[in-house]
Amino acid sequence: MRSSILDLLRQAEGSYISGEEIARQLNVSRTAVWKHMHELKLAGYAIESHSRSGYRLLQTPDLLLPNEIKNGLATKAFGREIKYYKEVASTNNEAKQWAANGAQEGTIIVSEAQNGGRGRLSRGWFSPTQQGIWFSLILRPGFLPQEAPKCTLMAAVAIVKAIRRHTGITAGIKWPNDILYQGKKIVGILTEMSAEMDGINYIVIGSGINVNTKLEEFPEELRSIAASLAMITGKKISRLELLRAVLLEMEELYEKVGQEGFAPVLAEWRQHSVTLGQQVNVIGINESFAGRAVDIDEDGALLVESGEKVKRVLAGDVSIRPAM
Amino acid sequence: MRSSILDLLRQAEGSYISGEEIARQLNVSRTAVWKHMHELKLAGYAIESHSRSGYRLLQTPDLLLPNEIKNGLATKAFGREIKYYKEVASTNNEAKQWAANGAQEGTIIVSEAQNGGRGRLSRGWFSPTQQGIWFSLILRPGFLPQEAPKCTLMAAVAIVKAIRRHTGITAGIKWPNDILYQGKKIVGILTEMSAEMDGINYIVIGSGINVNTKLEEFPEELRSIAASLAMITGKKISRLELLRAVLLEMEELYEKVGQEGFAPVLAEWRQHSVTLGQQVNVIGINESFAGRAVDIDEDGALLVESGEKVKRVLAGDVSIRPAM
Repeated sequence: MRSSILDLLRQAEGSYISGEEIARQLNVSRTAVWKHMHELKLAGYAIESHSRSGYRLLQTPDLLLPNEIKNGLATKAFGREIKYYKEVASTNNEAKQWAANGAQEGTIIVSEAQNGGRGRLSRGWFSPTQQGIWFSLILRPGFLPQEAPKCTLMAAVAIVKAIRRHTGITAGIKWPNDILYQGKKIVGILTEMSAEMDGINYIVIGSGINVNTKLEEFPEELRSIAASLAMITGKKISRLELLRAVLLEMEELYEKVGQEGFAPVLAEWRQHSVTLGQQVNVIGINESFAGRAVDIDEDGALLVESGEKVKRVLAGDVSIRPAM
Repeated sequence: MRSSILDLLRQAEGSYISGEEIARQLNVSRTAVWKHMHELKLAGYAIESHSRSGYRLLQTPDLLLPNEIKNGLATKAFGREIKYYKEVASTNNEAKQWAANGAQEGTIIVSEAQNGGRGRLSRGWFSPTQQGIWFSLILRPGFLPQEAPKCTLMAAVAIVKAIRRHTGITAGIKWPNDILYQGKKIVGILTEMSAEMDGINYIVIGSGINVNTKLEEFPEELRSIAASLAMITGKKISRLELLRAVLLEMEELYEKVGQEGFAPVLAEWRQHSVTLGQQVNVIGINESFAGRAVDIDEDGALLVESGEKVKRVLAGDVSIRPAM
């Protein structure tokens, strides 16, 4: 009902629409209309009420409300089901719960803030209220668990493309899935899965996109290594529009994987990579070494030329050595 | 306290031990001793009480009670923490819950019955009360999710060895992890995991071992394809002793993997395999074909020679074609 009322207010494009008209079109009482308007105002919508003219929408709140996300969303499945929170420990944790309880593919979990945001390798992720897009996507692919790491590469490619399309910023991907701009991290991705050996129960792709965080809002220890899109462009960016763009790029790429496998994803990943061709330090599970990142293989492993050998890196930390 | 009382009763080896003596040794009141004896009787222990002589243990119940499992268990970690149930849907489901809430490596979940036992490829597993060993083991290995399928092979090897040691039955492994005797299934294994791309959160290895089920107790459709150890030996088998043997073999093999990797597991798997060398029908995710199973590779994939090609089978159903 609230979403139908919002649709009518939006269609009026800032003009008044009478309570009587709304009640008639939605076949509800005027009291019901009044109650829903009240709730919308509480949710943060700026709605002007006028005793004779009716209602008009002045401003939507700067929140990732499900109604707002869906308004203009061009996807088929991704983001059609939305679990919205004001604050959670980690959207990935919520997503795993929803997925274990049967949430369908494409469901997203969105929170305005995370107080226990997690990144790769047990690191934290700074997720201040309303400053970024902190969300997780549930997938239920038909492939084997061995293919899952490539979903992470897919997500990185999709987000880089969405950022470029929406903001014009050309960011790069540091293997496997950090998104950097001039060496500073603007997006982190954490992929988790539940699987049997014969198939995947579900994959959760969690993304943290620093959208409008200001330099001084970052904790001091992050200021030299992190940035937000607004810091780069110098102006506030619509989280809603960017999230819709991200969901669309992700869905399109995921459909492509379903049809053609991961080869196109790997090809696009190579194009956007800032790791390939660089001297890197690898801190792996079993060994640490330096070398030159030359390619990724069909499994998504980073190939690093070290001395005479080319080593395959499947996990761990790969840092790019600054040029002298 | 109950476990200390049981220890004293066992040490008496069927002789009487007075309530006064028990109270003294455990530093509790005689009323407390009386209460615990009452509870032990309710739990199924046959304890004779005599007003002057005291208590003596006549028989332990035919249940997989934690106290009984631990009595004589030679492992370091496996089975030291036990979650015991009379009946659950699936021990794997319980195990995943415990693991997600932090249960330590080696924790086992045991149930006398499962009403929703699950096998590979979404098949059910018949798990009648007290007739088999239905349990799940929680592991937290340091290797990558790509290695997880080999844990399944490891479990199959350990169980085949424990069955041989404890019952003398020489069973074989059908790829990847069914255990057969003369073509009939006596054990099924279902491995599940929760992972990030950089590491495994936990693995749950669920096993269903048909121990004392009688032919006529199996549902009709299973009678030609399933069997129990007791059907083969012609006598009832101690589930407790077999479970302890399985836990010990599993722990030893798992420690070996930690030291030497999976190569020794794969070598032992080959020895116990009934699939290798056979004509097989493969029903895979993407294709079905026939061929001859020639080996497993270092990832645990089955290699099947089909026409000119050798195909790698990582998942799906592989049936052995009966000889003409």
